[in-house]
Amino acid sequence: MVTSAPAHAAVSVREVGLRDGLQSIARTMPTARKIEWLRALHAAGVREAEVGSFVPARLLPQLADTAEVVAFARTLPGLVTSVLVPNLRGAQAALDSGADAMLLPLSASHAHSVANLRKTPDEVVAEIGRIRALRDASGSKCLIEVGISTAFGCTLQGLVDEAEVVRLVRAALDAGAERVGLADTVGYADPLQVARLFERCFAVAGDRLACGHFHDTRGLGLANVYAAWQAGVRRFDACLGGIGGCPHAPGASGNVATEDLAYLFASMGVPTGLDFDALIALRGRLAGWLDGEPLHGHVWRAGLPKTLRGQARA
Amino acid sequence: MVTSAPAHAAVSVREVGLRDGLQSIARTMPTARKIEWLRALHAAGVREAEVGSFVPARLLPQLADTAEVVAFARTLPGLVTSVLVPNLRGAQAALDSGADAMLLPLSASHAHSVANLRKTPDEVVAEIGRIRALRDASGSKCLIEVGISTAFGCTLQGLVDEAEVVRLVRAALDAGAERVGLADTVGYADPLQVARLFERCFAVAGDRLACGHFHDTRGLGLANVYAAWQAGVRRFDACLGGIGGCPHAPGASGNVATEDLAYLFASMGVPTGLDFDALIALRGRLAGWLDGEPLHGHVWRAGLPKTLRGQARA
Repeated sequence: MVTSAPAHAAVSVREVGLRDGLQSIARTMPTARKIEWLRALHAAGVREAEVGSFVPARLLPQLADTAEVVAFARTLPGLVTSVLVPNLRGAQAALDSGADAMLLPLSASHAHSVANLRKTPDEVVAEIGRIRALRDASGSKCLIEVGISTAFGCTLQGLVDEAEVVRLVRAALDAGAERVGLADTVGYADPLQVARLFERCFAVAGDRLACGHFHDTRGLGLANVYAAWQAGVRRFDACLGGIGGCPHAPGASGNVATEDLAYLFASMGVPTGLDFDALIALRGRLAGWLDGEPLHGHVWRAGLPKTLRGQARA
Repeated sequence: MVTSAPAHAAVSVREVGLRDGLQSIARTMPTARKIEWLRALHAAGVREAEVGSFVPARLLPQLADTAEVVAFARTLPGLVTSVLVPNLRGAQAALDSGADAMLLPLSASHAHSVANLRKTPDEVVAEIGRIRALRDASGSKCLIEVGISTAFGCTLQGLVDEAEVVRLVRAALDAGAERVGLADTVGYADPLQVARLFERCFAVAGDRLACGHFHDTRGLGLANVYAAWQAGVRRFDACLGGIGGCPHAPGASGNVATEDLAYLFASMGVPTGLDFDALIALRGRLAGWLDGEPLHGHVWRAGLPKTLRGQARA
């Protein structure tokens, strides 16, 4: 047998364009437009979105309005709202905002961790413990999720040891993370590696391993999503229009495109709850809002195959 | 287990750009340039190429020099040269040319078969029998391969019944084909369908099922290649630069790009014998030769990951 998973287990998609996408784009999108974008995503069936990042506004002015965007997102029925949080101070802001979940990046590459967060991976693990204590003391139900970034390789140090990824998954959970995910931050992953590493991490984390984050930098984005799905992953990050490029590969595409992910799963008969036509329409509006920025993805151009047309909501 | 195949079984790639690519491009490439292209492909490690089609020159003037191109291809050491052949007359030309193999398209879609070849699938099967008799009588060793086109769906009739594909695989072999392949002519396939249909056809054809031909029209090209590889396929068609678009999806990408396929397998540690850097350099020259035509593919833009650099020949 080739496929190890039942064909019809539902998959959920976390739209991360408002965070991972916008942070890589120099211009700042007005808050009102972010709200329009979120409302349209929700109407297209998106039920989880990462809407910003609680980092100092001088570092990422594009995301300085995160608290305001969270406040709006909380008004959308059934939407799980998450924010990125790099440290304890950001975690406090996330708790104050009322977000449903906070995403803490933990880089498996020592070089990337130091360059990006100015902390070693183990210092980040210690911070996760402090964030868990803060959350517990606050009485908040805000979920703590750790995303293991550069899990499949790193543009700075090259290879990332799989045993180190497994160790950090365990350490993050021990420190108080309630959920972990694996991220191919720079588009280095291949399908066999994805299958192998998710299997190893499932053995440690069980169903607390609950997210795959892939970039399509070298065209393997959807093949990697498929391999992760075969390994049992049922929740994926994606960006409408495939925004969120890697600064080390100018012009290369970024995150897997939400609409392509929706098409992949629709084509396999796997429900996602996403409305394909609404996503494509919104992609067109996004192209206008980000006029001049490269958008990516494939299926928007050719449209659905005849065999899938009319199946508006997958 | 997710993967059913050993990681290091070698994969071979048939470059079909000179046929499938050029037939979709209006301009005619001079024979001398085709020869230059073939020589560079051979230097990049390509050991099988489909170099033209024996159809009337008034239908495809771009390929009218096929006999000449075959004559040159035969001088390249170790290169298996194949040509597309639509009927008995074309088969005679293929035998006269000295090509190593002829590829006979057999459409699993009745509507596509009639529109494209003006024959029903069963009439094509009968022609395969006549071609086998002609080949046997000629004393030639030219291999007869049948490509089941529209095996995963059709822009004209939509769904293609999997049982019909299996039936035609069996019928083609019974009629005298020595090898068969499955082609996603219009980019409708999804990975689960690919796994399922190849498994069903392997049950009928065994190792005579020996080619996967995928288009990247909707971004699933490499995911489908990976699924076919998991199912046991070890030989794939591809076009340098992803040329060979579908007339029903203007602007949409065509065949999976040879360089992306080389990267997929290199990233998984599967040998292909292809020289990645030479392919990328040739892609640049091809872009010049086809100035104005859209080229596709991904990895040419970002380049190899740091983890693979220096592994010139995969």
